Amino acid sequence: MSRWAIGIDLGGTAIKAAIVGENTGIHIDRTIPTDTASGPAGLVSQLAGIIAELYRVASLTLNPGDCAGIGLGAPGAVNADKGTLSYPPNLPGWAIVPLRDDLQTCLEKQEQLSLPVFIDNDANAAALGEALYGAGRDFRDFLMVTLGTGVGGGIILNRKLYRGSNGTAGEVGFMIVDFEGSSIHAGITGTIESLIGKKSMVNFARRMIEASPSGSSVGRFCNHDYTKLSPRHLEHAAREGDEISLAVWDRVGSILGVGLANVVSLMDIRKFVIGGGISAAGNLIFVPALDQLRHSTLPSMHDGLELVSALLGNKAGMYGAAALCFG
Amino acid sequence: MSRWAIGIDLGGTAIKAAIVGENTGIHIDRTIPTDTASGPAGLVSQLAGIIAELYRVASLTLNPGDCAGIGLGAPGAVNADKGTLSYPPNLPGWAIVPLRDDLQTCLEKQEQLSLPVFIDNDANAAALGEALYGAGRDFRDFLMVTLGTGVGGGIILNRKLYRGSNGTAGEVGFMIVDFEGSSIHAGITGTIESLIGKKSMVNFARRMIEASPSGSSVGRFCNHDYTKLSPRHLEHAAREGDEISLAVWDRVGSILGVGLANVVSLMDIRKFVIGGGISAAGNLIFVPALDQLRHSTLPSMHDGLELVSALLGNKAGMYGAAALCFG
Repeated sequence: MSRWAIGIDLGGTAIKAAIVGENTGIHIDRTIPTDTASGPAGLVSQLAGIIAELYRVASLTLNPGDCAGIGLGAPGAVNADKGTLSYPPNLPGWAIVPLRDDLQTCLEKQEQLSLPVFIDNDANAAALGEALYGAGRDFRDFLMVTLGTGVGGGIILNRKLYRGSNGTAGEVGFMIVDFEGSSIHAGITGTIESLIGKKSMVNFARRMIEASPSGSSVGRFCNHDYTKLSPRHLEHAAREGDEISLAVWDRVGSILGVGLANVVSLMDIRKFVIGGGISAAGNLIFVPALDQLRHSTLPSMHDGLELVSALLGNKAGMYGAAALCFG
Repeated sequence: MSRWAIGIDLGGTAIKAAIVGENTGIHIDRTIPTDTASGPAGLVSQLAGIIAELYRVASLTLNPGDCAGIGLGAPGAVNADKGTLSYPPNLPGWAIVPLRDDLQTCLEKQEQLSLPVFIDNDANAAALGEALYGAGRDFRDFLMVTLGTGVGGGIILNRKLYRGSNGTAGEVGFMIVDFEGSSIHAGITGTIESLIGKKSMVNFARRMIEASPSGSSVGRFCNHDYTKLSPRHLEHAAREGDEISLAVWDRVGSILGVGLANVVSLMDIRKFVIGGGISAAGNLIFVPALDQLRHSTLPSMHDGLELVSALLGNKAGMYGAAALCFG
């Protein structure tokens, strides 16, 4: 038996969908812009359309009887048991939507396809993808951290997703490491995301550049238009030795290390898979993070500490969504 | 069948041991001073002695064939699988001791008793005790926090102890909530324990009293000898309305709430059992803790948040140690 599934990464901008073989990985994938204009019903219909298209393509080479279902990773709070999506941040106007059942019904009515649908949070899906197909294959337990606009996470325990009592586990970006500080995100002071999310990171860099008498070479990379400053610019400048850019990455890595230290102390998880756009900076983050992680945990907890780069890039969500069907 | 076990709470000052019926709770318990002078071998022999004594007492009324074994909660890092105790903080001169096997062997040789021995960390044992016999009976998942000289913790997931990859999970006192602060414990900056452990709490109160022009009524409770100031004195003064004592408890509760918020965000645990000597202050801690907890987590995570007092007091360790044998 060689099972396969359709894995979908539902984002606020794009829908990424793939045919994934349990043992063979991604066969074909498609990316289309998300239809956010027609509300939940329009989006569900759009999803059913792309699923039907991929299903027909898959059926040319794969046995339809081996299809394990449709997996969907969605932004926001997902209740995997109930199949609901609540207030997704990038799908304006959505409240609590029974996305799993709606999609299953639409597939039947609109496309005459009767397939089981599984859904989970996008960060969880990415973690599961890395666990089964990526950087977490050798780890029994690990935390996946996604560094990007936000700071997200997914927890794998004993090779399975750990969802918690209500399905909201893994929100590493909301951990507080500086409760008396001044950074705030979503109304909460001193969270990891408020300190090293993309926006905070770039703002911090701007303040450092303004305050520096000797300036920074990062200006060359953003055409001296600091309103356009991005992590990528800071990465290039740091690799050329720019002190300010290096200090920015050092701070990002170090604060990440404090957050991971909390995960070590609380959960005794010692393996970390780091993904997301900002993680492209690699060692600029990893070296200070691991250093801080060691300084911020008891020596008796240092055995086996490891930070590794995610391997699947923006395909992790599709892999993991498909893997929801193989569970 | 009505199983029973002997549960032992091994402390640096006292050994507490009890006969515990799986369904009937503690039948008889004994407390004796810990023999710390004769090293591991001496202590193991002392433990074997008290076990044999309790076993003989138990055999008068209970079926020896129903004895599930000997459970031991020990301070410091315990590897439950290997049965080792590493560098217990209150047993000076100990390194890594194969406590389980040593005790089992000593019971056989010295007392002619062949019984399985189970060991775990004392904080884990207390959490398991509360889970099965105390305040956690109705919770599937919870964190037990022990507020005392140190701040310890034990995690129950799905009614079982969660030990983590290496058996060190639950160290909630080592979570960092103020990484840029000035409080340090065990070389780590800004941990919960460095902020609200007994010593820090009392030191903070002393500084507030010194800095206050109008003074504090807590002096009456410690005979104006502030070197003897204790949490109990601060509790009495706060209940009389002393502003400084109230502010101290507010701070303790609030910082505890930040730590618990991190547990909610990371693990989606929403139930907390609070024990340990300092928790006797009850609502002086619980009210600001729950308030801070709500302010420090996303509204989508507020359902079901609950803080409750531990119920078993200093017997939780014996209960939980015995429960290790019923697992």
